[in-house]
Amino acid sequence: MSQYATLVVAVVGTGRMGADHVRRLNDVISGARVAAVVDIDADRAKRVADGIEGCTPHTDPAAAMADPSVDAVLIASPGAAHEEALLAAFARDLPVLCEKPLTPDPASALRVLEAEQRLGRRRVQVGFMRRYDADYLKLKALLDQGAYGRPLMLHNKHRNADTPPGFTNAMMIHDSVVHEIDVTRWLLDEEITAVRVLRPAPSGHAPEGLSDPQLILFETAAGQIVDTELFVNCGFGYQVGCEAVCEGGTARIGDDHGVFINAAGKWGGSITPGFVERFEEAYDRQVQRWVDATRRGEVEGPSCWDGYAAAAVCEAGVRAQATGERVEVELVERPALYR
Amino acid sequence: MSQYATLVVAVVGTGRMGADHVRRLNDVISGARVAAVVDIDADRAKRVADGIEGCTPHTDPAAAMADPSVDAVLIASPGAAHEEALLAAFARDLPVLCEKPLTPDPASALRVLEAEQRLGRRRVQVGFMRRYDADYLKLKALLDQGAYGRPLMLHNKHRNADTPPGFTNAMMIHDSVVHEIDVTRWLLDEEITAVRVLRPAPSGHAPEGLSDPQLILFETAAGQIVDTELFVNCGFGYQVGCEAVCEGGTARIGDDHGVFINAAGKWGGSITPGFVERFEEAYDRQVQRWVDATRRGEVEGPSCWDGYAAAAVCEAGVRAQATGERVEVELVERPALYR
Amino acid sequence: MSQYATLVVAVVGTGRMGADHVRRLNDVISGARVAAVVDIDADRAKRVADGIEGCTPHTDPAAAMADPSVDAVLIASPGAAHEEALLAAFARDLPVLCEKPLTPDPASALRVLEAEQRLGRRRVQVGFMRRYDADYLKLKALLDQGAYGRPLMLHNKHRNADTPPGFTNAMMIHDSVVHEIDVTRWLLDEEITAVRVLRPAPSGHAPEGLSDPQLILFETAAGQIVDTELFVNCGFGYQVGCEAVCEGGTARIGDDHGVFINAAGKWGGSITPGFVERFEEAYDRQVQRWVDATRRGEVEGPSCWDGYAAAAVCEAGVRAQATGERVEVELVERPALYR
Amino acid sequence: MSQYATLVVAVVGTGRMGADHVRRLNDVISGARVAAVVDIDADRAKRVADGIEGCTPHTDPAAAMADPSVDAVLIASPGAAHEEALLAAFARDLPVLCEKPLTPDPASALRVLEAEQRLGRRRVQVGFMRRYDADYLKLKALLDQGAYGRPLMLHNKHRNADTPPGFTNAMMIHDSVVHEIDVTRWLLDEEITAVRVLRPAPSGHAPEGLSDPQLILFETAAGQIVDTELFVNCGFGYQVGCEAVCEGGTARIGDDHGVFINAAGKWGGSITPGFVERFEEAYDRQVQRWVDATRRGEVEGPSCWDGYAAAAVCEAGVRAQATGERVEVELVERPALYR
Repeated sequence: MSQYATLVVAVVGTGRMGADHVRRLNDVISGARVAAVVDIDADRAKRVADGIEGCTPHTDPAAAMADPSVDAVLIASPGAAHEEALLAAFARDLPVLCEKPLTPDPASALRVLEAEQRLGRRRVQVGFMRRYDADYLKLKALLDQGAYGRPLMLHNKHRNADTPPGFTNAMMIHDSVVHEIDVTRWLLDEEITAVRVLRPAPSGHAPEGLSDPQLILFETAAGQIVDTELFVNCGFGYQVGCEAVCEGGTARIGDDHGVFINAAGKWGGSITPGFVERFEEAYDRQVQRWVDATRRGEVEGPSCWDGYAAAAVCEAGVRAQATGERVEVELVERPALYR
Repeated sequence: MSQYATLVVAVVGTGRMGADHVRRLNDVISGARVAAVVDIDADRAKRVADGIEGCTPHTDPAAAMADPSVDAVLIASPGAAHEEALLAAFARDLPVLCEKPLTPDPASALRVLEAEQRLGRRRVQVGFMRRYDADYLKLKALLDQGAYGRPLMLHNKHRNADTPPGFTNAMMIHDSVVHEIDVTRWLLDEEITAVRVLRPAPSGHAPEGLSDPQLILFETAAGQIVDTELFVNCGFGYQVGCEAVCEGGTARIGDDHGVFINAAGKWGGSITPGFVERFEEAYDRQVQRWVDATRRGEVEGPSCWDGYAAAAVCEAGVRAQATGERVEVELVERPALYR
Repeated sequence: MSQYATLVVAVVGTGRMGADHVRRLNDVISGARVAAVVDIDADRAKRVADGIEGCTPHTDPAAAMADPSVDAVLIASPGAAHEEALLAAFARDLPVLCEKPLTPDPASALRVLEAEQRLGRRRVQVGFMRRYDADYLKLKALLDQGAYGRPLMLHNKHRNADTPPGFTNAMMIHDSVVHEIDVTRWLLDEEITAVRVLRPAPSGHAPEGLSDPQLILFETAAGQIVDTELFVNCGFGYQVGCEAVCEGGTARIGDDHGVFINAAGKWGGSITPGFVERFEEAYDRQVQRWVDATRRGEVEGPSCWDGYAAAAVCEAGVRAQATGERVEVELVERPALYR
Repeated sequence: MSQYATLVVAVVGTGRMGADHVRRLNDVISGARVAAVVDIDADRAKRVADGIEGCTPHTDPAAAMADPSVDAVLIASPGAAHEEALLAAFARDLPVLCEKPLTPDPASALRVLEAEQRLGRRRVQVGFMRRYDADYLKLKALLDQGAYGRPLMLHNKHRNADTPPGFTNAMMIHDSVVHEIDVTRWLLDEEITAVRVLRPAPSGHAPEGLSDPQLILFETAAGQIVDTELFVNCGFGYQVGCEAVCEGGTARIGDDHGVFINAAGKWGGSITPGFVERFEEAYDRQVQRWVDATRRGEVEGPSCWDGYAAAAVCEAGVRAQATGERVEVELVERPALYR
């Protein structure tokens, strides 16, 4: 595979997450396309494949990976199916992006770990996506710089509006807290050595049998303490927050304003240095929308009329600037094409 | 061009903005590639083209557009060169994304406007990228919904840390305020009918001859008043803000916390409803990084060890949850592959 | 009058503001009492005086000031009545706190000014109370320190939920903008030399005939520009804000979080250095409530039971700290007196 | 003692807190004066008494309380001396404001409790001053209204810049956490039934032997969980925060912007309804400053010149409003008296 070649991907699992990853690979990001999709539900696999040029549906992961055009595998099937798919990918030495969890329990995870070691090199990236969130990345960079000294504690918050039917106490750990487990290990670069769970009297909005909220406490190998409020039926929306308490300051994310610092007698955050940083995503979105519309044979967005009107106001503005007076803007009548 | 075909783009201008758009088209967004680059500096065009498979350098826009594989044109040359490039694109009926300004003055803009009308359909999108910024989009949506009544005033802020050598008062309008001109027209959906510019005693940090800051005042056809603080040597960073004052509330962007509302006795904003909205960009970034690394033959990101450790902590967590006790986490020794 | 003597005050005007000042002088602040109240409405004066030990009602300001026990005068009658009351106070050389406006127009103000000069020393403090607001005081201190260089512009906001019947455009200046006039002159320590008023198309919630909102623009003797959004039927509450744009940073008050600074690449504010600054008002309020209750013969607030329970939890806490274990708190049964 | 009589107070303890309470009683609040001060250090008592008209120094609390003019007692001596002073006040049936702690341990507190019960009515208010803080009061009111359902958890933060020499782990509970103990009991209206203390690896800035920070966990009789981060050498200032997690929303204080709510899809707070609420303290401070200056024979604050200048700008403003033009402000030359 040349550096410039498009990455050809097989996606295992075409449920909600899998279908979203198919869309992402084909329509959002650069440099990849989906050539095979796998689902034990053959109809679902076929429906997804039908929408994509050159994409074949499968029911067996190994069969999809046998396609010689496939360069890499994205696994988004239920956790219990991961081990088999991972081992099939290892058999063909294919790189894998595996949605979390790697596998549902330590014993099976250990088998995967050992299989990858037999390959002699890493093939798997696990889908802990918070490590790619802009706010968590900034917090991680701050901690790695050590600007405020060593981190001593983390205070996490993890709130969901509500839970789907059948959500259990164990799922609160496996599906929700698992993110704080990874965030803790990644931010602090330490293993977690002990866990406590405190269960207050549950909310009246908690489904029968669910102990919600809970307070989860971690200790790390370095003696740090991490607390996590998990409240999965909070009713008001989705909120994820993390405050790192360091020797000389605290840094908090999750309040909708980037990284919030307490240090050296001040609270606050950083100002974007320039327009590139501020509007980088707007530029990306602008060009993506233009490409998408053009591929559909359409034209949208700001028109020549908008360009003309801006030029006319600029001209008046420069005159107003020079004279200090009110200057009227003159425009031709708006042509039909731009109404 | 089929709906699924990659859009083949010629980029006119390979300076800072042009080179950045080349990178964006090839490496960031989905569905496009650059097949031709144009610059009056032949060496610069060649340097940019050399880094891209199947990309030809040109010094003449019309020659680049003559390549029959070219589907569309992105113009990022200096404003004075836009008219010629736009007319060349019109001659071949090619869709265009034209960086702002459309052209530097109303007379030339009018010529472009007339030429496009002769084509009988829109071919041009002008690069007012703020219309694609997440915050401005939310503000626009709020105003269009009319949740707080009609907008009566806008208060804009536009601050730069400093200006490059040779920056003039006229450029403060043409290069800086032009964004507020477009934002005003777009947010309010009204033409600007008059302009005033008030010039306070300048900052000691303003370069000789530059009247900085300035207060620019617009009136719209609907009688709205818009003020803009322009301060291009503020020293502390880049800040863009807009507060819309409506009949029943105000909505402000630019303070690093999304849209800030005053209405009905409350200040504040909205909570993200779910993890998809909150982490959408993290998912995109995760998969893009995986594809990029895989294309380079590398593996990075969370490893199988991270997956295993998470599974082990989850197992301990579920036990801690059930017993109310402190539960120690047991891990095998970390294998060499994951150190 | 000795330094330790209580200041004996005559209050002129017993409407809403006047009655509130009577309460303030007697029950809130230290070192003063009201011995005379004046109102052209004799019944109203009597009703107010009846509630206060040793207080006499009057209908004529001069008669009240003739009481030899009166040390000072607080004028809170309508503006048109101020000149007469001020001159009566000057006749007896009494110090005056005069609610704003000093008088309603420059000609009468000039007469007062000349009369005070004839006394040869200042006797009057005008009631521009924003100069005593904690946030404005902090902003003033920042500007006086010059930490961010000279102030170049001020952006003011002045919003009221709604206006009483009969509120006019002229009252928007005389009753509302007058505060920004004083704030501008005080913060910048410069006279205002010119005024512009821009009137956008009014809100649908503005009463018939009222041009609301308005944008008021001041120029100062030093060439600074000050803009004020005045919106007196904004519907959502009362908001007052001021952002000072200085050569090297901006400082904003009015967003419910003290002074908000943009400077040197950071946004944010200061952290209170210690508990005295943080809880000073709580201490004042605590002791005032205790004195008030005790004077009424009552006991309220935290009880001995609260003190005992705190001691018991502390004891358990110290044990928990030493052992690392969960320690139960033991309390005697709660006595009837504390239920 | 009549309802209108000044409350005559004996203050026991004239150290930092005691001297501050003397100042508060005499110069800040309304309706009280200090007639006796007590300190085992006779010189210190004398120095404090000397500054106050009609105030006698004592070394024995009982002797001070024997003064028949004394109406009430404020105890601000070290905690170990409280029991004796309280019993002396009970012997004379005097109302007491007792600084926290009531006494240093549950056994002595229980003796005081029993003594007060023998009086048959409450005589003591304990100085847990956070119950009088504006932010805590708002949070308490919210919880009592139950607007967001029952409170399930509290997250407290208590941070000090640093600790004085000799500060011990036990003092972290007795002097610092004691506030969170009272806040918890008061806000939740429940007793604390169990305590845990988790001690992370200490900060490098913690003095030898001090385990700083700590995480303190309370359980309440109703099954609520309360966590408190105590970090007394955080270095950056003093911060106290409390977030109440309720069944349908959270309410947080301590981030310098009043009460911050998450509920019903929104984050944010309340807007002050009117100028009285917004500027109440400014009015109090204005009048207090005026009374203080007048008692010293001085005049300060806004002058007649300020009143005149405001009137002149108002007049110009009304003209500018009517004409839409720039109107110059005319002032007489500033008289010497007002320079």
